[in-house]
Amino acid sequence: MGGTGPEGLGLAVRFAAAGHAIVIGSRSPERAEEAAAKVRAKVPRAQVEGRVNQEAVEAGEIVLVTVPFAGHHDTLEALGPAIGSKIVIDVVSPLAFEGGQVRALPVPEGSAAQQAQALLPEATVVAAFHHLDASSLMRLEKPLEGDVVVCGDHPQAKLRTMALAEQIAGVRALDGGPLANSRYLEEFTVVLLSLNKNYKAHTALRIVGIAPAVGAPRRGGKGRRR
Amino acid sequence: MGGTGPEGLGLAVRFAAAGHAIVIGSRSPERAEEAAAKVRAKVPRAQVEGRVNQEAVEAGEIVLVTVPFAGHHDTLEALGPAIGSKIVIDVVSPLAFEGGQVRALPVPEGSAAQQAQALLPEATVVAAFHHLDASSLMRLEKPLEGDVVVCGDHPQAKLRTMALAEQIAGVRALDGGPLANSRYLEEFTVVLLSLNKNYKAHTALRIVGIAPAVGAPRRGGKGRRR
Repeated sequence: MGGTGPEGLGLAVRFAAAGHAIVIGSRSPERAEEAAAKVRAKVPRAQVEGRVNQEAVEAGEIVLVTVPFAGHHDTLEALGPAIGSKIVIDVVSPLAFEGGQVRALPVPEGSAAQQAQALLPEATVVAAFHHLDASSLMRLEKPLEGDVVVCGDHPQAKLRTMALAEQIAGVRALDGGPLANSRYLEEFTVVLLSLNKNYKAHTALRIVGIAPAVGAPRRGGKGRRR
Repeated sequence: MGGTGPEGLGLAVRFAAAGHAIVIGSRSPERAEEAAAKVRAKVPRAQVEGRVNQEAVEAGEIVLVTVPFAGHHDTLEALGPAIGSKIVIDVVSPLAFEGGQVRALPVPEGSAAQQAQALLPEATVVAAFHHLDASSLMRLEKPLEGDVVVCGDHPQAKLRTMALAEQIAGVRALDGGPLANSRYLEEFTVVLLSLNKNYKAHTALRIVGIAPAVGAPRRGGKGRRR
C-alpha cells in the first residue's frame, strides 16, 4: 500500500529483484499499474502488478504500508477486514513540512505503527525500513548502505521482517525492541532529512558495536542462501 | 556538570586526553574530586579538578550538562547566573526505566536541550554527544566508533561543539539542524539502549551517505592538527 510513492516504489524494486511477487496498491488502479511498470523497467523479470489497495492487500502475504501519514489512519481502518491477521510492516514516519523545516507529528497512539496495531488488532504489526533512502533503493546497481532497525511485539513477524530486510544487498536487520520503540525510529527520520538537506546527501543509518559487522562474509552468504 | 556519571566521566577522559583543562562539577565536592582522580588515572598528564557545580560552571568556558534528567531542570535553574552567556552542550536524554524497559519521558519544552535553552535564555545551547557509549569513551586505548549529531540554533556554538567532538579520535561531527531536532536525538537513545540489551553490545551511530566517510585520511589528519 502506497507503492506509488518513492519509498514504497524503491522497496518494491528491491523485493522484486530478490524474487518476490509484488502487488503494488494504490487508491487509483492506473497509478498502481504505472508504478508496477516502473518496477518492471528496473527488474525485467519482476513478478509485479498494480491494483487498488483492497485487492493488493487481499493478494499479499505481507502488507507493507508506505502511504503518506495523512492517509494512514483512514486507509488502514478501511482495509482492516482485508488485512485480517496478516503481517503488516509499517514504514510510515508521521512528518510535517513547514517553512523549509520538517518536524515529527504527534500521534495519539504513540506512533504510526502503534496506530496501525490499534486499528488492526488481529494483525501482527512491525515497524521497519524508515531509514533507507528512497533514491538509493531505486539504484539497483549499487548495494545499499544501511541498517534496518525493526520494532515489534510479535517475535515471528519481527524475524520474518528481519529476514526480508536482509534480502536487500548491503542491509543488516537489527531487533530494536518492542513496538513502543517505533516512535523513536519514525521520528529519527527528521534527523536524516535534516542531514540530507545540510549535506546535500542521501543518508542512512549504521549501528556500530554489534557483531558481525556489515560486509562480513557471513552476512553476504546468508543473503544469497535465502 | 554531572561528570561523576559514566557519560560525563567518559567525555572528561576523552577531552582531558585531547589536552583540555577540565573541571568536573557535582553537588558533592568529594564526588567531584573522586571523578577527577579517575580521569587522572586514565590520563596522567590531565589538567583536571573536581568542584561543586557552581564553581565548575564559573571556571568553564564551555559547560557540558550530563546530569540525570531528574535533576536537569533544578540544576540549570539554580546555575543560570553562573552560566550566563556561555556555550552549554546538553548531553541529557530524558529516560524512564520501568520493568526492564526504557522509554523517553515527555518534556514540556520539547526536549532536555530545549528546556535548558528556556531556563538559560542568554546561553547558547546545543544538543550533542547522546549516542557515544560511556564505557567505550573510557577505553582510551581504542579509537571510538561513532558520529556525533549536533543540533542547535546558534551557528557559532554549533561549529565550536562540532570541532570539539572531532577531537575525539574516530568521531565525526554532523550538523543535525535546529535545536528543535534535539528531541529526536535524545529519544533515539532508547533504541540504542534496546539494541545494547538485545545484542549485549555497546552500540553507537554512524550516518552513511555523507562524504568524507569516517576513517578517510583527511579526518585523522584534521584531528591531529587541532
